[in-house]
Amino acid sequence: MTGSNISLASPIGVFDSGIGGLTVVSELRRALPHERILYVGDTARVPYGGKSSETVTRYGREISDLLVSEGAKMIVVACNTASALALPSLSSDYSIPMIGVLEPGASAAVKATRNGRIGIIGTRATIASEAYSKAISRINPDLSVRAVACPLLVPLIEEGLLEDEITEMALRRYLSPMLHEEIDTLVLGCTHYPLLKKAIGRICGPGVALVDSAENCALAVKAQLGPNPDQNDHSRLDILLTDSSEGFLRIAEKSLDLSIDSLSVRRVGT
Amino acid sequence: MTGSNISLASPIGVFDSGIGGLTVVSELRRALPHERILYVGDTARVPYGGKSSETVTRYGREISDLLVSEGAKMIVVACNTASALALPSLSSDYSIPMIGVLEPGASAAVKATRNGRIGIIGTRATIASEAYSKAISRINPDLSVRAVACPLLVPLIEEGLLEDEITEMALRRYLSPMLHEEIDTLVLGCTHYPLLKKAIGRICGPGVALVDSAENCALAVKAQLGPNPDQNDHSRLDILLTDSSEGFLRIAEKSLDLSIDSLSVRRVGT
Repeated sequence: MTGSNISLASPIGVFDSGIGGLTVVSELRRALPHERILYVGDTARVPYGGKSSETVTRYGREISDLLVSEGAKMIVVACNTASALALPSLSSDYSIPMIGVLEPGASAAVKATRNGRIGIIGTRATIASEAYSKAISRINPDLSVRAVACPLLVPLIEEGLLEDEITEMALRRYLSPMLHEEIDTLVLGCTHYPLLKKAIGRICGPGVALVDSAENCALAVKAQLGPNPDQNDHSRLDILLTDSSEGFLRIAEKSLDLSIDSLSVRRVGT
Repeated sequence: MTGSNISLASPIGVFDSGIGGLTVVSELRRALPHERILYVGDTARVPYGGKSSETVTRYGREISDLLVSEGAKMIVVACNTASALALPSLSSDYSIPMIGVLEPGASAAVKATRNGRIGIIGTRATIASEAYSKAISRINPDLSVRAVACPLLVPLIEEGLLEDEITEMALRRYLSPMLHEEIDTLVLGCTHYPLLKKAIGRICGPGVALVDSAENCALAVKAQLGPNPDQNDHSRLDILLTDSSEGFLRIAEKSLDLSIDSLSVRRVGT
């Protein structure tokens, strides 16, 4: 039974610390409906957003090794924290392409702004890395960038409190200073945040364009795969978690309407 | 320089996933002011409260091995989740005594209640384990126990939002159903929660006794050490973290007024 995977196409490997990367999977499904996707959620060590660069890089390497051993043809780092902290040093270690969520989000924000004032929200680690601000100013150094860490949003989303007065209160506190500075573009710099798009849009109002890093990452993956994709339907979503997780399936199925073909738990690292 | 630790007394080893166990350290300092304490905070994998029994047990074993290799004379599992999920299987694996926070908290609650209605708050994993309810009903099966998981409290505390309207709103939501059922005793079943004692006390009112598992655990440690402690002053607090953490020191020093003699980062597990 060693060859049980032989008939399956090489997957696009996708990883995140938890459920956030599923927003990228959802967009990949839309952009590339025939592709097989293998998703790893590092639920044994979730969240990454408050951890150090060294630790997040080590976790990213362990999971990338796993994806390569499973035959992935490309690795999508569907986590802004890992894209900011780990991707720069990981990308040269693998022979297959690696795509993060950060560069696609930064270039979409530059295209979207009209008044030159861009807001960025993300985890504490992503914001402290200044990776978005640097990526934006590499494209256009004249733009004004205001970045705010929103450490409570991931726990609120992981609890499924997508439309809730506690979440609303936290969002108002995080967003008010930027709105006061009249940003016209807001980068959702964490793959969890598209799940709050409705609440964020309500608070920001129609004058602020929301840049969804998940959506832009999926478009970058499509561009990387090139103009002549395999036309056969390999559509399939396999999920590996590093720890069993109840909340995972609930969010995947209810909020993102994803259909999962297989789900298993695999120990990584130790 | 291999003998740099030779002159130090054997420490009481204490561990938690993050900063919560410092509330136990604070109480140990008060109960046993001459003891040396070695604290391990598993900040590389914090939090434990949503993770599986298998994973939390593995983490607990790795950290206990570390404490034993550092010469600990006793291990205090200063984390309710690990006490509920890991301690039962770990305690037989080590020759030194292991004390958790759960049994001391349960017996203190049984002593405190007058109307026989006890409330318990804790992480999702602690509450799902039913460890407190079982411990209480082993002592007195006639008591009524109402347990509520409060998954947002740890992130709120780790962010330092101890007196904040968001924390207040979350607390009211978690506590209202129990208060409606007229509990007269509330077990703070997570070592983070004593940091919210003021806010919880305000919501519960003077008619509800708050049972602090940290305080009761420290008394159990004192009892375990026996009536004739070493009278020399070995007072010292050494901290090992599994990942560098900014918030850790802030909470330790500002909220708990702990003076730390050494702090270092040590990789555990992988």
